[in-house]
Amino acid sequence: MGLRDILDSVYAGELTPEEAQARLAGYATTDAGRFDAARESRRGIPEAIFAPGKTVEEVAALAETALDTTGRAIVTRIESEEAAALEGLDGDTTYHERARCLVVHEPGFEPPEISATVGIVTGGTADRLPAGEAAVIASEIGASVTRIEDVGVANLSRVVDQLSRLRELDVLVVAAGREGALPTVVAGLVSAPVIGLPVSSGYGHGGNGEAALMGMLQSCTTLSVVNIDAGFVAGTQAGLIASAIADARP
Amino acid sequence: MGLRDILDSVYAGELTPEEAQARLAGYATTDAGRFDAARESRRGIPEAIFAPGKTVEEVAALAETALDTTGRAIVTRIESEEAAALEGLDGDTTYHERARCLVVHEPGFEPPEISATVGIVTGGTADRLPAGEAAVIASEIGASVTRIEDVGVANLSRVVDQLSRLRELDVLVVAAGREGALPTVVAGLVSAPVIGLPVSSGYGHGGNGEAALMGMLQSCTTLSVVNIDAGFVAGTQAGLIASAIADARP
Amino acid sequence: MGLRDILDSVYAGELTPEEAQARLAGYATTDAGRFDAARESRRGIPEAIFAPGKTVEEVAALAETALDTTGRAIVTRIESEEAAALEGLDGDTTYHERARCLVVHEPGFEPPEISATVGIVTGGTADRLPAGEAAVIASEIGASVTRIEDVGVANLSRVVDQLSRLRELDVLVVAAGREGALPTVVAGLVSAPVIGLPVSSGYGHGGNGEAALMGMLQSCTTLSVVNIDAGFVAGTQAGLIASAIADARP
Amino acid sequence: MGLRDILDSVYAGELTPEEAQARLAGYATTDAGRFDAARESRRGIPEAIFAPGKTVEEVAALAETALDTTGRAIVTRIESEEAAALEGLDGDTTYHERARCLVVHEPGFEPPEISATVGIVTGGTADRLPAGEAAVIASEIGASVTRIEDVGVANLSRVVDQLSRLRELDVLVVAAGREGALPTVVAGLVSAPVIGLPVSSGYGHGGNGEAALMGMLQSCTTLSVVNIDAGFVAGTQAGLIASAIADARP
Amino acid sequence: MGLRDILDSVYAGELTPEEAQARLAGYATTDAGRFDAARESRRGIPEAIFAPGKTVEEVAALAETALDTTGRAIVTRIESEEAAALEGLDGDTTYHERARCLVVHEPGFEPPEISATVGIVTGGTADRLPAGEAAVIASEIGASVTRIEDVGVANLSRVVDQLSRLRELDVLVVAAGREGALPTVVAGLVSAPVIGLPVSSGYGHGGNGEAALMGMLQSCTTLSVVNIDAGFVAGTQAGLIASAIADARP
Amino acid sequence: MGLRDILDSVYAGELTPEEAQARLAGYATTDAGRFDAARESRRGIPEAIFAPGKTVEEVAALAETALDTTGRAIVTRIESEEAAALEGLDGDTTYHERARCLVVHEPGFEPPEISATVGIVTGGTADRLPAGEAAVIASEIGASVTRIEDVGVANLSRVVDQLSRLRELDVLVVAAGREGALPTVVAGLVSAPVIGLPVSSGYGHGGNGEAALMGMLQSCTTLSVVNIDAGFVAGTQAGLIASAIADARP
Amino acid sequence: MGLRDILDSVYAGELTPEEAQARLAGYATTDAGRFDAARESRRGIPEAIFAPGKTVEEVAALAETALDTTGRAIVTRIESEEAAALEGLDGDTTYHERARCLVVHEPGFEPPEISATVGIVTGGTADRLPAGEAAVIASEIGASVTRIEDVGVANLSRVVDQLSRLRELDVLVVAAGREGALPTVVAGLVSAPVIGLPVSSGYGHGGNGEAALMGMLQSCTTLSVVNIDAGFVAGTQAGLIASAIADARP
Amino acid sequence: MGLRDILDSVYAGELTPEEAQARLAGYATTDAGRFDAARESRRGIPEAIFAPGKTVEEVAALAETALDTTGRAIVTRIESEEAAALEGLDGDTTYHERARCLVVHEPGFEPPEISATVGIVTGGTADRLPAGEAAVIASEIGASVTRIEDVGVANLSRVVDQLSRLRELDVLVVAAGREGALPTVVAGLVSAPVIGLPVSSGYGHGGNGEAALMGMLQSCTTLSVVNIDAGFVAGTQAGLIASAIADARP
Repeated sequence: MGLRDILDSVYAGELTPEEAQARLAGYATTDAGRFDAARESRRGIPEAIFAPGKTVEEVAALAETALDTTGRAIVTRIESEEAAALEGLDGDTTYHERARCLVVHEPGFEPPEISATVGIVTGGTADRLPAGEAAVIASEIGASVTRIEDVGVANLSRVVDQLSRLRELDVLVVAAGREGALPTVVAGLVSAPVIGLPVSSGYGHGGNGEAALMGMLQSCTTLSVVNIDAGFVAGTQAGLIASAIADARP
Repeated sequence: MGLRDILDSVYAGELTPEEAQARLAGYATTDAGRFDAARESRRGIPEAIFAPGKTVEEVAALAETALDTTGRAIVTRIESEEAAALEGLDGDTTYHERARCLVVHEPGFEPPEISATVGIVTGGTADRLPAGEAAVIASEIGASVTRIEDVGVANLSRVVDQLSRLRELDVLVVAAGREGALPTVVAGLVSAPVIGLPVSSGYGHGGNGEAALMGMLQSCTTLSVVNIDAGFVAGTQAGLIASAIADARP
Repeated sequence: MGLRDILDSVYAGELTPEEAQARLAGYATTDAGRFDAARESRRGIPEAIFAPGKTVEEVAALAETALDTTGRAIVTRIESEEAAALEGLDGDTTYHERARCLVVHEPGFEPPEISATVGIVTGGTADRLPAGEAAVIASEIGASVTRIEDVGVANLSRVVDQLSRLRELDVLVVAAGREGALPTVVAGLVSAPVIGLPVSSGYGHGGNGEAALMGMLQSCTTLSVVNIDAGFVAGTQAGLIASAIADARP
Repeated sequence: MGLRDILDSVYAGELTPEEAQARLAGYATTDAGRFDAARESRRGIPEAIFAPGKTVEEVAALAETALDTTGRAIVTRIESEEAAALEGLDGDTTYHERARCLVVHEPGFEPPEISATVGIVTGGTADRLPAGEAAVIASEIGASVTRIEDVGVANLSRVVDQLSRLRELDVLVVAAGREGALPTVVAGLVSAPVIGLPVSSGYGHGGNGEAALMGMLQSCTTLSVVNIDAGFVAGTQAGLIASAIADARP
Repeated sequence: MGLRDILDSVYAGELTPEEAQARLAGYATTDAGRFDAARESRRGIPEAIFAPGKTVEEVAALAETALDTTGRAIVTRIESEEAAALEGLDGDTTYHERARCLVVHEPGFEPPEISATVGIVTGGTADRLPAGEAAVIASEIGASVTRIEDVGVANLSRVVDQLSRLRELDVLVVAAGREGALPTVVAGLVSAPVIGLPVSSGYGHGGNGEAALMGMLQSCTTLSVVNIDAGFVAGTQAGLIASAIADARP
Repeated sequence: MGLRDILDSVYAGELTPEEAQARLAGYATTDAGRFDAARESRRGIPEAIFAPGKTVEEVAALAETALDTTGRAIVTRIESEEAAALEGLDGDTTYHERARCLVVHEPGFEPPEISATVGIVTGGTADRLPAGEAAVIASEIGASVTRIEDVGVANLSRVVDQLSRLRELDVLVVAAGREGALPTVVAGLVSAPVIGLPVSSGYGHGGNGEAALMGMLQSCTTLSVVNIDAGFVAGTQAGLIASAIADARP
Repeated sequence: MGLRDILDSVYAGELTPEEAQARLAGYATTDAGRFDAARESRRGIPEAIFAPGKTVEEVAALAETALDTTGRAIVTRIESEEAAALEGLDGDTTYHERARCLVVHEPGFEPPEISATVGIVTGGTADRLPAGEAAVIASEIGASVTRIEDVGVANLSRVVDQLSRLRELDVLVVAAGREGALPTVVAGLVSAPVIGLPVSSGYGHGGNGEAALMGMLQSCTTLSVVNIDAGFVAGTQAGLIASAIADARP
Repeated sequence: MGLRDILDSVYAGELTPEEAQARLAGYATTDAGRFDAARESRRGIPEAIFAPGKTVEEVAALAETALDTTGRAIVTRIESEEAAALEGLDGDTTYHERARCLVVHEPGFEPPEISATVGIVTGGTADRLPAGEAAVIASEIGASVTRIEDVGVANLSRVVDQLSRLRELDVLVVAAGREGALPTVVAGLVSAPVIGLPVSSGYGHGGNGEAALMGMLQSCTTLSVVNIDAGFVAGTQAGLIASAIADARP
């Protein structure tokens, strides 16, 4: 329903101005700011709270708003001590240590479930935090998540041995640091869409993930890419694709 | 079917060595090089010939190999004069001028058709070549392609007016140069996955598409991104997602 | 008038849907694309046609659309030979050679005049093209434009001698290449707002205007800056400020 | 009055050498350095003390000099503990926590008031410090400051809903991090001059404000830009423009 | 023995699937991850544990796995306090302070010895850590290692005086920071292969080893290069070359 | 023989000053400049003439000097037309078109032969020129050169099928553009030293070989690297290693 | 004589306003722009005309102005054909081909002579143009110029053999491209001040002189540096130092 | 005396091998490394100890070696606490707080004195540390040092008022951060050689001294430059020039 249609409907009295506003706006102004509570319904992905640079009190306030408006709060890049300080939130709280994510479900919250699978693949242990973040988010979107870890290209057999598992998944997030070759190798072996997730490992020239990002953008096969360490973006993009597939399933 | 399974099957006599090799390899060695003829069956996307840096004769030889092994040849980034020099190829030849792509279908070639839609959105006229390349490829993969052009954010109404069309599509490629804000704005308005395609317009600091790429990677919404001007990659990635959706449809 | 107000007015029958659309949209869809014809009324600055990368035919078509919808066509970065090829346009045509701009006024077009002055200052001859572009645009917006040229800081007396002229102007665009120090020196001497316009002169490290841009961004005085060689942006921003001042004049 | 005029006047005995020196120089040499006390009269903007890299004692000494020579001291980028250590200064002291600015007015100081409005717009909470700094400075220059916060482009309705407020302001500072698209979107909607203020949020490629700066420099609409996190520069430039407008008002 | 040969052998019953897998894979899946235990036999270089970003417990677990599977554990970039915490490992433990490497040999471990020499050359004291790392690794591979230190090019005599020693070695790693000229000077004087090892000393433009890396890549003589501070890579590459030479010796 | 030894020998009358000079200097001053004619004896690698930026006459003069002093002239990066203009040189002339190298052997020149093999591996056709240059140089040094082409990682089977050939070689140069993953994959499969040769293919971010160089420097396996397109350096370094191995052979 | 002194003198009638202006300003405004004719007397270095980006007519006009006001015209970076077109200038014309400089002396012009020597040292033939430019300028300033060419560090003997010549000079300009190590090596051997002149040779990472510039800035000995290819700046700076030395000579 | 001359003299028995070695080498090998004790006699500048990255013990040991071999120790970039820990050194110790330099003179050490002046100029307080380092070094070389501080270009009168003092000096080091325009302005006003010293102040794009360095390299007047914050290099280069001038004085 485009702008003109909405305006026509308002003119025709079929839509009140309030409804028109809500349909176009989709956010609730609260004391904690203009929280994009409707993001989930509008985009199919939950809003998350990015912890760095915020005090524990600010995170707690935002988490409460999230719980109130959506029944769920997801906090990313939060260390375990800070997560512990949030235990008083009213709901079922899980701290994913290897993803540095805190997830709170209000009592009675029904997490979504979608009939599609997301694979999260890593080259080595240095990739676990961004990959973990992607896995938590994809899981909260409702996808069935499969983790395939430690299959870096320095020893090709590791990834080749996982070929049948890789080929069963609907969409893949492949995380890699250093030279970032793993998503290219994986994407050459499967027919599902692959999202490259560059990781800020490595030192010297091209360190901090720049070589991995560049390599994935230059890949000689088909990949799309997110920013360095952007596990949340990789997980939500994989979730959107999985949702589209699940919606198409009969 | 993993490496071990294949080896077990060969050992058990259930698979001949030739079949095992074909299953693992998927390419045919020809005089024109090791052409990845099986890429389409392995990945669901056709192989293309990147024209820059090749002579007309080399392009012609590779196109013939492509026709022989897959029934179709796709040449990207080819200027009209060079395309004209390839008219002798045996098949139904189309030169897409605004995409700089040449497509040849062998007589009797049945182009694939998949029941999913891909939207190709541009901010302005400078985006048309990479966007056109993406459209041609997505179309050759069989998707139904919708073009929405000239909706740059300098005047928001242009994109808002296309909202209902944008929301009907299964997957979107959004091309933009300069500051590259359009994919962010579009992705904030739809629930389908959006692939950002940065375009090498712009001059000065951040010109040649670097600002657009950076902006899309830093987007405050969910996007995945391909390299600057990488219309082929955007089109194939959109095609893979569309194929996954189409395959899921009953 | 905000979104809600417009919706209220439509609901109240005070505004037709067409009027609401026009008020929000402000562009006309023509064959030549979605030309932002209303940019001048919406923003107070005329739309211009950026010639590089377009054929003469394309520029001509866009210029005709501009003439039809706004009574004026402004083409930037157009070489003299190409400008000559556009002589058939119906109107009063001026080619500004040292600005590489072509301006066409329809017969009867009344150029705006605003009671405010814009100064365009350059360090040396290498700055003349971007500075010229800024001057042409500010002039088309209706400002009274003063040029002060060749006052680079290698010999401070040149700029000090222009002090009284500099201090009489309402807003200043100061163009400089190489190390880009001139806007800093000028801004330390006047009370009018100064817009730094870095120019792509210079070679070696920091060449192509990067040193000038960096230096202006790092200026130890107050400046705002536009991109390298972005004479059009500098001229329109100066024009917007001049217009605001002129509007305030009794 | 240019150099030659001053020299003529001195020669004619109409100006003493001391007066000529003061007219050309405009600073007072104190023990604390050559404090540019006359900056306000010369440029219309107050001098400020940049706290980072200075000890509390150094900041205190400079603040006293500022109070003595101009009746006001403005300290930027000062943390609350350090600000607390400056409470002994003789005057009316305000610490703006969300701007990290300390402002002291001598007893009897009459803050300027100008009849023009400055809007300070932010995309999200990460932008508050630089935006706050800009707001404090514009306010000290005497402008009437309006804050519009949390209207990032991930949900367009937030900014569209503020349209009427945005259109009432004389000059706008628009702060944004990540991809920095907000100033472009705002500038496409208003006719007042817009100053883009890139903010050092974001991580990975283009993080620390580089993507935002690049995007604003490449903007497809008319903006001028200041350096990353340069709230003081944005605020003073907005103040200079507001002053020019106010001076023009009858 | 290629893929097809292995498959033929399996088919012919000459190779069991397990043997085929081991031949192709060469890694053992343990609880601590997919440890590339066979790296040494496959590549002739031992696997090492990169300590940064890992807890002492994680390093200890990986070191134990290394001891169990290969009889040796090598930990790089480990500070002395952390190394002290690993003293309980079962074996002969050496902490190389100036290389920040910990080496543990299981009781009865027979370190390899190869009949080839590796020279490790440094320009100054700032180069000692990466050079030390290279020396430890080359030594563990079994090469005879000669250290030549403090021969930076600011005083040419220092390096010229070492000429006869330099010319006796089979392969050289030359470490240098700042402008990184030493490997070029050395490589102009010897006939053995030289590997440049850029070091992250230096400050300002080109600091952190970027100038040294660039200079070695641009060398007007023949060098190959590793990344900044990549002592492990330089040492293993030198070890591989020394091994090839030693293997060729009768 | 070090500086002191030479000085001692001169003092003892065992060496004339002329001989001492020659031993230390190793170059002959000719009209064409200080030609490093002794480079081959000093370093084991022939001097080459880099054609870009030189006129045909200058190249011819240098080639004649090379023939006179060493019996051989090698010209790199020379186009076929320019090579044709050099046909009058006295000797056996070969133009390697796919390497853009011209090699001239004086009548009676005995090319060296060393008992070691160098492998030159490429990912695709875009790598052929730098790889060809490396092959010509390694061949002129006397190594037995094996070419393995077109085994890019987009289809892993291509490289896996060449495993037995790859494992037979003494030293490998692996050329790759785009994301540059091939040397990493190859080095994970063989025990010979591998030299990565990044190639300036690719476009957009990380184009012109920067991504390939970064990726090779960041490789998670052991590689040393040369600059982008530096086929001559890769070939000579491989030749030096091959020579060292050959010299060790009984 | 400071500003205050001049003002005092004017007030006292000891200086006319015209003289005061000339003393402070030192430039003559002509039709060709504000030519800094007095640069030579003010700074001891002649003004030069930078040819790139100017038409032959513009260069000729500026050269005539230079001849008229200073008796000499120096044009830099001018190709031989363009220089030939300037033969009609009234004076003694010399085109320095290997420096791309044109020098014209008016009939009767007495070139300055200073009793100090400037050495111009190069690593190889690629350095000749910037080094030649430096030599022409230092010579026009009146210094006695010594050229030492082709002493690159790939063969150290070349530079060591020139040691006694190098040590006799008052100031040295050392030009080098690629890794730019020569100025560091030379500066370690002499006590005269050394100016590093990086040259835009080299390709790949750090090409176009960036590695040479970085290396010289990072030099482990004492150097000052000019921009890439800035032969004019190196030559004038050497000339200023030589002049200061010559002035000090009795 | 060149290599050949030395060799001739040795052959003729006029020089012992030991003397020849000393003449060519000029360093003493001590336990603390190859200390370049003869740097002062060879180059006229004292060796200094760069403290960062060294322990207090290491600095103390090197300082003692310096005292023993040259009668003086100079330690740069040392904080006051560490300097205090070095008080036990045998000699006259001075800690220059605003330069972070420690200087120790052995009892009886006669500091050099040269009859030439070095000016050290700064733009603001942020420049004091690198400028102070330059001043201490120039002073230790024996030059008469004049400090001119706080004359940044935001208020031109500050520098113009110092003109007569600036014009009396033999050589100038001009330190500036942010946009780095001060050296350009000063060099346009004096005839002595000017060395630009960029300072790592400033934030955002071009921060950490990069804009200042670029601006000085691009200067439209004649400057030579040292690296960011390289006060030691600026001071020694100024000292070398001052020494050359002093030596020339009768």
